[in-house]
Amino acid sequence: MKKRIITISREFGSGGRTIGKQLAEKLGVSCYDKELIEKLAEQTGLAKKYIEEQGEYAPAMHPFSYAFVGRSVNGMSVSDYLWNEQRKKIQEIAGKEPCVIVGRCADYILRERDDVLNVFIHAPQADRAKRIVEVYGETETEPLKRLREKDKKRAINYKYYTEREWGRAENYHLTLDSSMFGIEGSVNLLFDILNTERER
Amino acid sequence: MKKRIITISREFGSGGRTIGKQLAEKLGVSCYDKELIEKLAEQTGLAKKYIEEQGEYAPAMHPFSYAFVGRSVNGMSVSDYLWNEQRKKIQEIAGKEPCVIVGRCADYILRERDDVLNVFIHAPQADRAKRIVEVYGETETEPLKRLREKDKKRAINYKYYTEREWGRAENYHLTLDSSMFGIEGSVNLLFDILNTERER
Repeated sequence: MKKRIITISREFGSGGRTIGKQLAEKLGVSCYDKELIEKLAEQTGLAKKYIEEQGEYAPAMHPFSYAFVGRSVNGMSVSDYLWNEQRKKIQEIAGKEPCVIVGRCADYILRERDDVLNVFIHAPQADRAKRIVEVYGETETEPLKRLREKDKKRAINYKYYTEREWGRAENYHLTLDSSMFGIEGSVNLLFDILNTERER
Repeated sequence: MKKRIITISREFGSGGRTIGKQLAEKLGVSCYDKELIEKLAEQTGLAKKYIEEQGEYAPAMHPFSYAFVGRSVNGMSVSDYLWNEQRKKIQEIAGKEPCVIVGRCADYILRERDDVLNVFIHAPQADRAKRIVEVYGETETEPLKRLREKDKKRAINYKYYTEREWGRAENYHLTLDSSMFGIEGSVNLLFDILNTERER
């Protein structure tokens, strides 16, 4: 089965987002990452920052969650409402065009389709710590702590909505250590896999 | 860094052993799987069956463990003695020749080397259940139960000796779902990766 959609899940600082973007360029398809957040903001009227951060938190952990206590949209909590809209939007995009989707549990949301390649990008902590300082700059919190917090939040968010363990090989068709393959090497490897797959 | 050693860890029924064997043939290097068990039997004087099954059990769970209560070799329990000999033998092989090593925590044992590519092969339960009946035949225990028991034992054994979670992407440079790539497809993909790596 030809794979039209590539989902990229990634550890913070692994370069997974960049790999997704460059792969989409090389394939000549759209990459949904920030674009998805913008579309969701338009559709739901929620703030972009809230949507962006919601991908990193389980609802109960969200720093804004107290602001929404007692509030609901169509009888759902705001976070469940966003999850539902996100699910619909990702399904709509996947049905419409070949693309790369970064993050937002797209691997789980599209699990019923057989034209999806699910990829997970990771790297050792030391390499990721180096990368986040290079890409995002220094902050008051030391890099290893930033990584651990972000990884933990992503894992909890993923578990909350999918009942799966984040980062387990079985959730993905392919996982790659980007510290071994490099950003360009990972892009080329994925591109070759998709081209070989197409020829089958 | 050129990768001379490929370790293959695998879910039961995923075809990982066959992939390792065929990859070694294609690369023109030795594959250590049953060969390793024979070498360890020679070296330790322990029965092949014990060594084979030890890879699948944590010491406390081993069905023969009661037979060894109170026994020790050089002050170690028999299972720790075997682990130690296995570790030495795998390190010796890796230092001597390029090869493929299937199972036996070789990924962990060789973690200090930078010429090792660690691979994990998995597949959905339904595909693995089908494969174990084709390859190993029917038994009184139904296939899904056989899978679950074997996976659980491998995970406990891995955790006991490595303190890592079995099947997590972060333990490997690459993981593959063999139901998507097929046996031949997985072999070719790994072969291409090793050849590209060599040219860097």
